[in-house]
Amino acid sequence: MAHEEVTLLDFWPSMYGMRVRVALAEKGVKFEYKEENLAGKSPILLEMNPIYKKIPVLIHNGKPICESLNIVQYIDEVWKDKSPFLPCDDPYEKYQAMFWGDYVEKVFDSGRKLWMEKGGEPQTRRKNYIDSLRMLEGILGDKLYFGGEKIGYLDISLIGICSWFYTYEKFGEFSTKNEASKIIAWVERCMKRESVSKYVAEPLKVYDFALQIRKHCGIE
Amino acid sequence: MAHEEVTLLDFWPSMYGMRVRVALAEKGVKFEYKEENLAGKSPILLEMNPIYKKIPVLIHNGKPICESLNIVQYIDEVWKDKSPFLPCDDPYEKYQAMFWGDYVEKVFDSGRKLWMEKGGEPQTRRKNYIDSLRMLEGILGDKLYFGGEKIGYLDISLIGICSWFYTYEKFGEFSTKNEASKIIAWVERCMKRESVSKYVAEPLKVYDFALQIRKHCGIE
Repeated sequence: MAHEEVTLLDFWPSMYGMRVRVALAEKGVKFEYKEENLAGKSPILLEMNPIYKKIPVLIHNGKPICESLNIVQYIDEVWKDKSPFLPCDDPYEKYQAMFWGDYVEKVFDSGRKLWMEKGGEPQTRRKNYIDSLRMLEGILGDKLYFGGEKIGYLDISLIGICSWFYTYEKFGEFSTKNEASKIIAWVERCMKRESVSKYVAEPLKVYDFALQIRKHCGIE
Repeated sequence: MAHEEVTLLDFWPSMYGMRVRVALAEKGVKFEYKEENLAGKSPILLEMNPIYKKIPVLIHNGKPICESLNIVQYIDEVWKDKSPFLPCDDPYEKYQAMFWGDYVEKVFDSGRKLWMEKGGEPQTRRKNYIDSLRMLEGILGDKLYFGGEKIGYLDISLIGICSWFYTYEKFGEFSTKNEASKIIAWVERCMKRESVSKYVAEPLKVYDFALQIRKHCGIE
């Protein structure tokens, strides 16, 4: 392709944003990263995503693409010659990757509850989160990546969670390694790739961010 | 393709199920329809969709496909030679169809609130719903269908709503024709197709169903 203008509106601790960063890096696409201030959203974010007003937004040659999984699919289709994320020739395999990609939202949600909710039943929150991770361990099986021998759509959909493990563990009082060791081994494999290690957020920084948000929301 | 076994687990008033029925009909795929009893879900539904336990589920040669928009995409890819729903060669156009297909959930949600919520602010509920329809009118513009000259992914994602218009109007106290006349004209065009008219539910029957559900939930 000729001249490409690729800009990403993002926010550093976002697992949704990390999907897009990793996807672009896997494809070797250079992009301009623009950090958003979610407390005061930029005019360009409001213009590019007027419906949801959320990051991440990919702006490709002036046109906005919103919603992280849509963006990952779009990237896969536009830069299709390198590292396909989704199987192109088997609709059922493609469907399965997309189904589990959507399921990741359930994992993220139950993770969020570990640090954003107080009182209630912490055991239930912990169980729900760990069960959702274990479900994905079953899908991973003995494969190197969810995509098989190579990183694929589901790997990219999930990988940002590793930045949040420390936060989840601190608030949920458990060890991911003890509860879901296969997922930890998968993260370690992913982190050997620069496309991942360079673009996921630093766990201690994320934890500090979570503490600030809790304080801001009056949870502590 | 050789012998195809296609079964649909569905529930007649479901707008999600209607998506799949219309998609199969548009492709000319014969299927066995199995009505589910949501008060006592069948063992086959629980087996085929153990995560969400929801209809619709398409079973294609023994393999389950869940989540209505995933199913519509799967149908489009498997039976790709007839009536494509999504643009194949333009990733941005495809993304736009998918973005607005997801947006339909917002329309369905605000519609559901018209008849499932009581008290609060009925004007706000009505406004939210009508605004969401008008947003789609803007997307339709002067085209025959959302897909252009032919029915496409967004048409299929939305069409089941026509079965619910009467219910929304009764509880929301407004006229869809007055508020969103372009959408009504679009429904009339769609209803000329047997793939639609044969597979969407009858509005008065849906209204009766809504009354029963409200009673069951103690809303009246």
